[in-house]
Amino acid sequence: MNLILLHPSDLIAKNLARLKERRYQHIRQVHNAKIGDELRLGMVDGLMGAGTIVALSDHDLELEIQLQHPPPEPLPVTLLLALPRPKMLKRILQSVTALGVKNIYLINSYRVDKSFWNSSLLQGENLREHLLLGLEQAADTILPKIFLRPRFKPFVEDELTEIASFTTAYVAHPGVTTTCPYHQGEPVTLAIGPEGGFIPYEVDKLQSCGFTPVRLGERVLRVETAVSVLLSRFI
Amino acid sequence: MNLILLHPSDLIAKNLARLKERRYQHIRQVHNAKIGDELRLGMVDGLMGAGTIVALSDHDLELEIQLQHPPPEPLPVTLLLALPRPKMLKRILQSVTALGVKNIYLINSYRVDKSFWNSSLLQGENLREHLLLGLEQAADTILPKIFLRPRFKPFVEDELTEIASFTTAYVAHPGVTTTCPYHQGEPVTLAIGPEGGFIPYEVDKLQSCGFTPVRLGERVLRVETAVSVLLSRFI
Repeated sequence: MNLILLHPSDLIAKNLARLKERRYQHIRQVHNAKIGDELRLGMVDGLMGAGTIVALSDHDLELEIQLQHPPPEPLPVTLLLALPRPKMLKRILQSVTALGVKNIYLINSYRVDKSFWNSSLLQGENLREHLLLGLEQAADTILPKIFLRPRFKPFVEDELTEIASFTTAYVAHPGVTTTCPYHQGEPVTLAIGPEGGFIPYEVDKLQSCGFTPVRLGERVLRVETAVSVLLSRFI
Repeated sequence: MNLILLHPSDLIAKNLARLKERRYQHIRQVHNAKIGDELRLGMVDGLMGAGTIVALSDHDLELEIQLQHPPPEPLPVTLLLALPRPKMLKRILQSVTALGVKNIYLINSYRVDKSFWNSSLLQGENLREHLLLGLEQAADTILPKIFLRPRFKPFVEDELTEIASFTTAYVAHPGVTTTCPYHQGEPVTLAIGPEGGFIPYEVDKLQSCGFTPVRLGERVLRVETAVSVLLSRFI
């Protein structure tokens, strides 16, 4: 946790926040904090700054906060990711959030196991926990938006052209020889398939929306590694 | 498993290999293989090619093999990695191997928990399993070499200048503003610290051996993500 994330409901006065449970435990145990200590803070979807511990009990603490500077610039990459198995999705969401991606479409693909769409991870607020962990790691405050698209064809035909407009669009595809180029600071749409890759029909559909198939090196990477390695080209 | 890795001890004749246990199970269950099927193969530290199943029983199978083409080119990066906690080390070794790194120094640092050096993972043949998983994933055959260096100062003073000679050397350091550049195909030595980073004394020592401190973006990454993101700059 390189940043303590506050929520509006933590505020008990204009510049005073009260924390308990996970964040309280972390501040006590990892930071070994005492009254007067200063911590790095941010408000979810808001500004960053610092907070001074002004009260400390056995089960909560109070911080006087000053939030004044903006979070880091978003990474201008929209990520389309074939839904991975839940355990891997948790880790990928954390790392993708830590890398600064703000728009993530979890999409279907022929090789996505149908059961993954029924995972409790996708329901309600469960995804949010992993996005918050990514923000705390990276010291960022802006929550990524997650869009679930369990049907490939209507997503590509009805939505994708607009999503990818005014961006350079790539689809990771180990079958080609073009190496993924660098686009520092330019808007990119990046599609990454499931383990085993998108099937040819899916690559064709993406190409018809302007996506260029690219790879990174001769080796076949796990999705988790491929996501970090490909996003690195745009940082 | 994008490649079935053979060991010299699998050979029962010049071009005939017998497999059992993990690889046998995988070929039966994942490939759903039958006699006559062809599989992608490689000999550990040797050539790659194909094998045809010529015999299949309830507990083993035999492959007629033809190994003729070389594995992918190594990634010309020597990696110095502050020893991570064992669970993360397993995943990092797999991804680093899959990315083609062939020389990995696991080094000490002030923020490395001393207990990590006593992990059974570092003893005997235990590391090898994770390197093999990385090779099977990437479809490569050349095992990385792992060097354990539990003392930072003698390693840097006695060995590092020679290791880094004729390479461009970088140390990942979130405290600087220089972005890690790209060096496709050129030899690089890359040092990555523990969670929390190298301490200033360690960064100074590395700089005195010619390492340039670099970072990737404003955000603080977990070591696991940082390794993939930084290696991507050299693919």
